[in-house]
Amino acid sequence: SKADDPDAGKGQRVMIIGGDGYCGWATALHLSNRGYEVCIVDNLCRRGMDDSLGFNSLTPIRGIHERVRKWKEVSGKDIELFIGDVCDYEFLSATFKKFEPTAAVHFGEQRSAPYSMMDRTKAVFTQTNNVMGNINLMYAIKEFAPDCHLIKLGTMGEYGTPNIDIEEGYLTVEHNGRTDTLPYPKQGNSFYHLSKCHDSTNMIFCTKAWQMRTTDLNQGVVYGVATEETMMDPALINRLDYDAVFGTALNRFCIQAAVGHPMTVYGKGGQTRGFLDIRDTVRCIQIACDNPADKGEMRIYNQFTEQFSVNELAALITEAGKKIGLDPQVINVPNPRTEMEEHYYNAKNSKLQDLGLEPHLMSDALMDSLLKIIIEYKDRVDKSLILPGVNWTESASVGQQLEKAEKVKA
Amino acid sequence: SKADDPDAGKGQRVMIIGGDGYCGWATALHLSNRGYEVCIVDNLCRRGMDDSLGFNSLTPIRGIHERVRKWKEVSGKDIELFIGDVCDYEFLSATFKKFEPTAAVHFGEQRSAPYSMMDRTKAVFTQTNNVMGNINLMYAIKEFAPDCHLIKLGTMGEYGTPNIDIEEGYLTVEHNGRTDTLPYPKQGNSFYHLSKCHDSTNMIFCTKAWQMRTTDLNQGVVYGVATEETMMDPALINRLDYDAVFGTALNRFCIQAAVGHPMTVYGKGGQTRGFLDIRDTVRCIQIACDNPADKGEMRIYNQFTEQFSVNELAALITEAGKKIGLDPQVINVPNPRTEMEEHYYNAKNSKLQDLGLEPHLMSDALMDSLLKIIIEYKDRVDKSLILPGVNWTESASVGQQLEKAEKVKA
Ligand SMILES: NC(=O)c1ccc[n+]([C@@H]2O[C@H](COP(=O)([O-])OP(=O)(O)OC[C@H]3O[C@@H](n4cnc5c(N)ncnc54)[C@H](O)[C@@H]3O)[C@@H](O)[C@H]2O)c1
Ligand SMILES: NC(=O)c1ccc[n+]([C@@H]2O[C@H](COP(=O)([O-])OP(=O)(O)OC[C@H]3O[C@@H](n4cnc5c(N)ncnc54)[C@H](O)[C@@H]3O)[C@@H](O)[C@H]2O)c1
Repeated sequence: SKADDPDAGKGQRVMIIGGDGYCGWATALHLSNRGYEVCIVDNLCRRGMDDSLGFNSLTPIRGIHERVRKWKEVSGKDIELFIGDVCDYEFLSATFKKFEPTAAVHFGEQRSAPYSMMDRTKAVFTQTNNVMGNINLMYAIKEFAPDCHLIKLGTMGEYGTPNIDIEEGYLTVEHNGRTDTLPYPKQGNSFYHLSKCHDSTNMIFCTKAWQMRTTDLNQGVVYGVATEETMMDPALINRLDYDAVFGTALNRFCIQAAVGHPMTVYGKGGQTRGFLDIRDTVRCIQIACDNPADKGEMRIYNQFTEQFSVNELAALITEAGKKIGLDPQVINVPNPRTEMEEHYYNAKNSKLQDLGLEPHLMSDALMDSLLKIIIEYKDRVDKSLILPGVNWTESASVGQQLEKAEKVKA
Repeated sequence: SKADDPDAGKGQRVMIIGGDGYCGWATALHLSNRGYEVCIVDNLCRRGMDDSLGFNSLTPIRGIHERVRKWKEVSGKDIELFIGDVCDYEFLSATFKKFEPTAAVHFGEQRSAPYSMMDRTKAVFTQTNNVMGNINLMYAIKEFAPDCHLIKLGTMGEYGTPNIDIEEGYLTVEHNGRTDTLPYPKQGNSFYHLSKCHDSTNMIFCTKAWQMRTTDLNQGVVYGVATEETMMDPALINRLDYDAVFGTALNRFCIQAAVGHPMTVYGKGGQTRGFLDIRDTVRCIQIACDNPADKGEMRIYNQFTEQFSVNELAALITEAGKKIGLDPQVINVPNPRTEMEEHYYNAKNSKLQDLGLEPHLMSDALMDSLLKIIIEYKDRVDKSLILPGVNWTESASVGQQLEKAEKVKA
């Protein structure tokens, strides 16, 4: 199948923006391994955020230059590296002229909801970095590569939790006897999620006005650390975040279970979301590359494979953990977010499967891609990072945050 | 009625952001004249844009310091002036602490669709200035004046031209047997209109997460120059834009008619929009001030009084012009925008009228507030400014724009 064909990508030149990140790194290697000509664009700001906040990946990730060198050694394939910021149009223009992409996969955004809610500066950074970076990218495509297919990562969180079924991007509405198919109404629940709503809204316009080819992937929560390529050598290993800012629920629960800390369920635990294995993320991007949108068309797919409530996640991990000698426990902690803890949730996700995606199941993945690797690196866990973090209603100016911190100390 | 009561505003302290602009100046005087304690916040960037592009108001507007001094002389009322940028949080914080507003009316955004489509830099400026300014404002309210009512100017252009009725902000959807009331789907048609979509999407979240009081006014195209207060003295006169970037269709048509230039209808002229008289704008803001939203509630009103197609506008002006000895003509010019030229349009606008708005009619306003004033200042018209301007599909990087300009010269 195309998923394994080493020549699948022949003739495609794919720019992976955010290629030093969790999804981007795995995707770059997946595509490179299948004959796509790949380059990575990244300003490494994510590594800087980890440093600033005192976080670290559970797995010992290498620098991007070393990673790429090692990949060449292991696979014989080149990945060209462009270190710079997509918000810097001069850099981005030069990169486009040099690499001449046929597709640009855009992972390069600030992607943590709690980070965007820490304080005003980070809220503004998140929306500026994400929205303006994406505008720049659309201008660069228009100016230097008008046929280039923009594959943009969105999030299922753009939809919020409406009381009706979540469709894939568009909703056909009958109203007062007339009908139209409109962009699905968006209700982001953090400055991060909102930045993705803005990206999508901007893309709908540019796709039409500039006759671009675009695909918007509303991705669910990604879990797991192992993909075929990132496990080929320890120097290729992918990141695994478990802090309260960048760690997503499932990764965090697994690490908590592994070190004998109770899994911290926020509130009632009825919050339901879509999830997918990192091995499905890389395959979805390949599918998007191989099925470019027409000029003036914006395809929107919901990129997740299964949906679970937080309580269901905890139950799955408890079951899997017991099989390998762990004894996972649950505690319910006050919810730092403003969100519904019990709600209807039914999101559609058939489009990518119609195009060939064969989903991994979480119940299997927990064992072969997650818990075992975590146990391997368990001595690296910094226990101070596994408690809940940022509070949605407290999000304040930097000055106020510092004042509060003073009071706590005093 | 409240519309005329000189003590209507007692106890209210209203911050007018963008108070040196077209809508903001008229609103500041209207409220000041009715007993509201008013301050103006403005960074005067709009005057700078006019200077850069070689534009000027038809009417000879005075500097903001002189305007405010004259108002004190004419009315005996003080308007405090804060010159600075809402994107500068240090300035905004100090202003909030000093003035302690009970309401903040936010007009202070880059508000021209063509300006936002001129080049990439102006697209990014528009979305940064507008979206980040509005985020700052919400943080300032949260931090310094949590009871303050945010009255935010949006635009009817956020809705685009859907094939169903346009409701006031929310749409009740029945889908697969379930029902929810959701934010009305937005389809902005320029980086400017999109910035307003983003503002609204951000506001919905902050209103809920931070229990703010907010009102979003989706305003139609404003026309006219005369309000009671701005006509009290020549030094108080309001701006009247007629260039192809900041001038809106109606104002431009009137000026074209007055100087004997045919009215430049873009494309087929079937484009239909909502309109209102500047005298209704100021009254709508007063109504919003007097009817604050509850904590955690976001009110959304469609702020326009009549809807017309471009061809209908031209016909109205032809009729009015003939009565005062003009002979207005029409030419259809190629449409520089990407937009539908024939479409369904039926937008609701009952909420503000239910709260007491008594609309002026365009057919009357053309005579008493627009054509006569234009004729008075007609010698100031710069004829080079009345042709169509910015092209939507050409919007490029600054470098590309300069290159094109070179080619035209060569
Ligand atoms: N991880 C998930 O569960 C998940 C879920 C839904 C959507 N997504 C989306 O997928 C994308 C990738 O997520 P991830 O988990 O790999 O995040 P990540 O933080 O691991 O990677 C993002 C990368 O982008 C880079 N980057 C950020 N801003 C940049 C800029 N202005 N210029 C250049 N590079 C920049 C960072 O340095 C980082 O390497 C994001 O857009 C995210 O919103 C992720
Ligand atoms: N005029 C219309 O027809 C119309 C229609 C719909 C909506 N609106 C909205 O109403 C508002 C006012 O429009 P207008 O026609 O009076 O525009 P305007 O350009 O005349 O006034 C806007 C004012 O805001 C100021 N400003 C802009 N950015 C600022 C910043 N960052 N900090 C401080 N001040 C800033 C400008 O200097 C200017 O004085 C805008 O938000 C606009 O989008 C206007």
